[in-house]
Amino acid sequence: MMNQVTLIDSGYDCWLGYKRIADSALRESYAQYGSRFVVIGGEGDGDENGEGLGASSLLRTAGKELELALSSMLGSVTRERVSGAGMVVAGTFGSSSAFESLAGAYEPAELGEEGYVIHSSEEDGCIYLSAASERGVLYAVFHFIRLLQTDQQLEGLRIQEVPRNGLRMINHWDNMDGSVERGYAGNSIFYRDGRFIEDKSRIRDYARLLASAAINAISINNVNVHRQESKLITDEFLPDVAEVAGIFREYGVRLFLSVNYASTIEIGCLDTADPLDSGVAEWWKQAAADIYRYIPDFGGFVVKADSEFRPGPFTYGRNHADGANMLADALAPFGGEVIWRCFVYNCLQDWRDRKTDRARAAYDHFMPLDGQFRDNVMLQIKNGPMDFQVREPVSPLFGGLTKTNHLLELQIAQEYTGQQRHLCYLVPQWKEVYDFDTYASGAGSTVAEIASGRLFGRARGGIAAVSNIGDDLNWCGHVLAQANWYGYARLAWNPDLSAEQIASEWIRMTFGRDEELERIVLDMLLGSYSIYESYTAPLGVGWMVNPNHHYGPNVDGYEYSKWGTYHYADRLGMGVDRTVRTGTGYAGQYHAPVAERYESLADCPDELLLFFHHVPYLHVLHSGKTVIQHIYDTHFSGAEQAAELLAKWDTLASRVDSGRFEHVRERLAHQAEHACEWRDMINTYFYRKSGVADEQGRTIY
Amino acid sequence: MMNQVTLIDSGYDCWLGYKRIADSALRESYAQYGSRFVVIGGEGDGDENGEGLGASSLLRTAGKELELALSSMLGSVTRERVSGAGMVVAGTFGSSSAFESLAGAYEPAELGEEGYVIHSSEEDGCIYLSAASERGVLYAVFHFIRLLQTDQQLEGLRIQEVPRNGLRMINHWDNMDGSVERGYAGNSIFYRDGRFIEDKSRIRDYARLLASAAINAISINNVNVHRQESKLITDEFLPDVAEVAGIFREYGVRLFLSVNYASTIEIGCLDTADPLDSGVAEWWKQAAADIYRYIPDFGGFVVKADSEFRPGPFTYGRNHADGANMLADALAPFGGEVIWRCFVYNCLQDWRDRKTDRARAAYDHFMPLDGQFRDNVMLQIKNGPMDFQVREPVSPLFGGLTKTNHLLELQIAQEYTGQQRHLCYLVPQWKEVYDFDTYASGAGSTVAEIASGRLFGRARGGIAAVSNIGDDLNWCGHVLAQANWYGYARLAWNPDLSAEQIASEWIRMTFGRDEELERIVLDMLLGSYSIYESYTAPLGVGWMVNPNHHYGPNVDGYEYSKWGTYHYADRLGMGVDRTVRTGTGYAGQYHAPVAERYESLADCPDELLLFFHHVPYLHVLHSGKTVIQHIYDTHFSGAEQAAELLAKWDTLASRVDSGRFEHVRERLAHQAEHACEWRDMINTYFYRKSGVADEQGRTIY
Repeated sequence: MMNQVTLIDSGYDCWLGYKRIADSALRESYAQYGSRFVVIGGEGDGDENGEGLGASSLLRTAGKELELALSSMLGSVTRERVSGAGMVVAGTFGSSSAFESLAGAYEPAELGEEGYVIHSSEEDGCIYLSAASERGVLYAVFHFIRLLQTDQQLEGLRIQEVPRNGLRMINHWDNMDGSVERGYAGNSIFYRDGRFIEDKSRIRDYARLLASAAINAISINNVNVHRQESKLITDEFLPDVAEVAGIFREYGVRLFLSVNYASTIEIGCLDTADPLDSGVAEWWKQAAADIYRYIPDFGGFVVKADSEFRPGPFTYGRNHADGANMLADALAPFGGEVIWRCFVYNCLQDWRDRKTDRARAAYDHFMPLDGQFRDNVMLQIKNGPMDFQVREPVSPLFGGLTKTNHLLELQIAQEYTGQQRHLCYLVPQWKEVYDFDTYASGAGSTVAEIASGRLFGRARGGIAAVSNIGDDLNWCGHVLAQANWYGYARLAWNPDLSAEQIASEWIRMTFGRDEELERIVLDMLLGSYSIYESYTAPLGVGWMVNPNHHYGPNVDGYEYSKWGTYHYADRLGMGVDRTVRTGTGYAGQYHAPVAERYESLADCPDELLLFFHHVPYLHVLHSGKTVIQHIYDTHFSGAEQAAELLAKWDTLASRVDSGRFEHVRERLAHQAEHACEWRDMINTYFYRKSGVADEQGRTIY
Repeated sequence: MMNQVTLIDSGYDCWLGYKRIADSALRESYAQYGSRFVVIGGEGDGDENGEGLGASSLLRTAGKELELALSSMLGSVTRERVSGAGMVVAGTFGSSSAFESLAGAYEPAELGEEGYVIHSSEEDGCIYLSAASERGVLYAVFHFIRLLQTDQQLEGLRIQEVPRNGLRMINHWDNMDGSVERGYAGNSIFYRDGRFIEDKSRIRDYARLLASAAINAISINNVNVHRQESKLITDEFLPDVAEVAGIFREYGVRLFLSVNYASTIEIGCLDTADPLDSGVAEWWKQAAADIYRYIPDFGGFVVKADSEFRPGPFTYGRNHADGANMLADALAPFGGEVIWRCFVYNCLQDWRDRKTDRARAAYDHFMPLDGQFRDNVMLQIKNGPMDFQVREPVSPLFGGLTKTNHLLELQIAQEYTGQQRHLCYLVPQWKEVYDFDTYASGAGSTVAEIASGRLFGRARGGIAAVSNIGDDLNWCGHVLAQANWYGYARLAWNPDLSAEQIASEWIRMTFGRDEELERIVLDMLLGSYSIYESYTAPLGVGWMVNPNHHYGPNVDGYEYSKWGTYHYADRLGMGVDRTVRTGTGYAGQYHAPVAERYESLADCPDELLLFFHHVPYLHVLHSGKTVIQHIYDTHFSGAEQAAELLAKWDTLASRVDSGRFEHVRERLAHQAEHACEWRDMINTYFYRKSGVADEQGRTIY
């Protein structure tokens, strides 16, 4: 059951803090349906059921959630044993004759393993929440609750939902010492001091939040798998892992582990990790068997290999297909999957070398292997070719790979987008990624169609993202950053949802019914990504942050580094020439007409200009401004807008509980101040270098 | 006794690895005097003495060292009970009639507490090592041993030595967790895991090395005194401190502790650290009494207050004299001293603000207090106004303060000078500091004369420096960095020694007698400071290092920081205007004619040009080169010379034991490579910014 410490003011409840509906008319209209409910097959331990199948943990979860939500929002609720008129009826299609009436209106076969139906019957005054699977029923329940949380009419509901992405995953970068790599919300909720945290109640609350937005997979340890974490797949920790997997199972979430590619050496007794060595393959087969003994529905492995000093098949002169397939063969008998990351590049680059281009690396490494991976392998590809910058083009592996299962990887954690101290609602960025047309098979070949597997008829596909949660009471460090977590999940279910629609849902569920508040917070959220971009690195060039921790402005922070992350600014101009004609050739990794658009200085979109071209400061953008004036203008206006975010929030003092109000206020005040740092450092840097004065004569130092 | 693990190849023995003298003629000539010795009063536990006073620990130390050195270098030695012809005779003047013959030649009163005489008598074939004090005898013994180590004639010796600086101190920045702030040679030799290290043998070996170069004071914990270290002055740790003090006492070294100014709050039960509060004063008096109960000859306190976030009297609206005097009054009854650091500045500066000047800070803070400090207070002043950069002007507090005791602070640890991975023999830099003429009372008012206290007739004075040692087997990380440790100590004794003289001594003592080796290592050492300066930050502007750890090039690393450390480079020029006429006024803190020299663009020395003036890149230096061409030329030649250091060392493969040879080689190879990084980053930065091409068309990226 959920953690009983529900501290509304802290934001701990996120979007599931079910408050009593204040509008009595609305509450009563909901009560027509919602004062009674039945979960068919979801009650107790099986033998108490009036009808249908024995109770399952997913249906038990659904029942408990319905009870909590309806009793909280409506004041009271009665749980029935059998279905009847004027109630909420939840269950799988085959479990009861109650659902027979739906058969005409819906096609259960189309719903698959996770789809569901929400139907209000005019005849018996019931609302049916039904699906082919129990997981579908759970999702229907959360959807139904959302309708109540967002003031929706319950009459005439004819909802049929099917997820667009099969895998909807969250990756944790948690270490067993309790730290979280790129974590900005406290420590791990899983580990402390090298062990699992004994009290698992927070994990249960987390699983519930994931299920509410239909996340169905999780990896619980950092892709950089250190010594202690390497042992998660051994008898030392598998009992704990199994316990955690059991909690997630009750919420329909499959558990994966990140594994150390060199496990055979580090925790086995072998002296090699060569994927073609039969001893290595045998070791992994045994390891898989051990894991499945503890966790029969174990999801599989997430692997970061040959990347940023992690071991991998390159050590043995093998390629990534060799490595991934070896692991895939070990997992296949049990139905497990390998998620193999494509974040592979030369991280010992020489800044003097303008030929090597990190942006090319993933494509150069993986395209030659297209079609060589097992069916239970999925390549996980970051949205852009670099590393979660505020603005990047989409990775050309999307549309490049056609014969390999793959996933889109996003980062909910705001590593380069304000680290949950700045407000930066990322759904607009993600929408641009999903909607990007690769033209891989003509117009309409969007990333959304590709990542799901649909465009190329792949059996597997989906989306993964790096978590932004930690053990801060409000989970995300910044209460408003919960919108990114929620938005990621909603978009994973349906990439056609708009950024505004998701934000509205989240605001109502999180802060309750208040039109003025909704208008203002919506405005803040929707503008925030653009505001953040405007006062940070300009025109797609990226980086310009402090090394290591990646927070705050530092124009040359990565300029003379080994990481392949340069802007090449001199006194005349800046940007990276990635054209085929005169540059690194990266632009040629795209299909026509995208390749041509990026190749062309005239056609390249302003926001990516410096990613693809080295131009003079006086180059004129499509906007009509010079590059240098654009930098000045966006940085002045960005800092102003950051200050306005604070001013807008301040109008809500009486509309938000003081705990969350003060917390958000403190973050926004920091952001406003820090945006001035960004403005001044970026403007000063480029003014000192270019010598071009601001047309408006504003203060540059 | 000394640690028996004498690993010559590791460099553990430093300059005291007494090897048998290979030249048999020389060995035999030394044996005329050195085959027998007596330490009068230094034998056993007192009742075994043939003559003079009871044995003291200093004389026991002297005797053991003489025995070890002579037996090792000459093959064997006999320790006599009474003096006689043809032997080495060590002891205090008054202890025996044997020294009466010296009375005519020397004036014991002039020798003071630490001076000594070394005299070879033609009449009785003895060499007399004598002094007014036992500590003087110990120093005479080490001096005598040095004569043997460096092939000096023993006939006709008429040496009289008196130290120029009363206090010759080493400051450790060791923390009790075992780390060393700004340490580049491993962990602390004093602490591990929050406690003292149980085995104190390494501390004893360290004390011996200090005594060999006449260091007479040490502070054993970081000036940034954290929670655990605050408790060093309590009963919890005083027994350990007393044990360590006892070891140092046997070598004539007085022990000091760095204290937390806010101890009354942090470890006392008071709620204030107001220096004028009687409870605070009383608390410190009691603390002092406790300390002296354990350590009757305790040196006193080192205090970093109101500096870089450390607490201090400013919190209570008091000044630094109030703070220092309160502590001084607590120590005075016991003969203790307060060493109060002047490293006080605004470390939350705004980089946009060109009026505030960190360089001014120490003078601005302390000059108004001149004359207000107790006699047992010494202000400790860093050599330059900033922070141990490779090139700074001398702090104007030297020559400014006339009525306050003060010390010169140097940094043996190579924080900004290559961190003991680069070879940088610092004695030439220190010589420039000592020899700098402040004109405080006319020509000849050098820092050496001021720091010693002599110029203004101060009762106390001297020199302190931040240690460069750690628990690396070779102590300093870089074997050749031992020369800085040794050189610091020798110069502290006598600032008139030349950098070459000290280096020669050190080379012979460390590597043995080999003219070719001496020639080459001397050349390497003497050139290294200038080489290091040439490929790092140019013309006195400083900084340009990576933040926090301070290693490696980063031109803008401190440019947009809060630390007051800027170069203000734009496309036209660079440097900080510190003139009185148009700048921060810092140049006016010096006496005439120094102030005028720095104020004048025409007269300012090239090497400090950018410290005092903001000039165009095309400004012509006294050297005839433009600033930008100077930058290019020095950086190209500096990197070349760094490569030559390696080449020179490589010629010594057969002349140095393989342990030390390979170790130094590895460091020099890194330096050569890293110097290229410096060259390329600095040159590229300024080329990109200035657009001025290198006259010689060399590669700039």
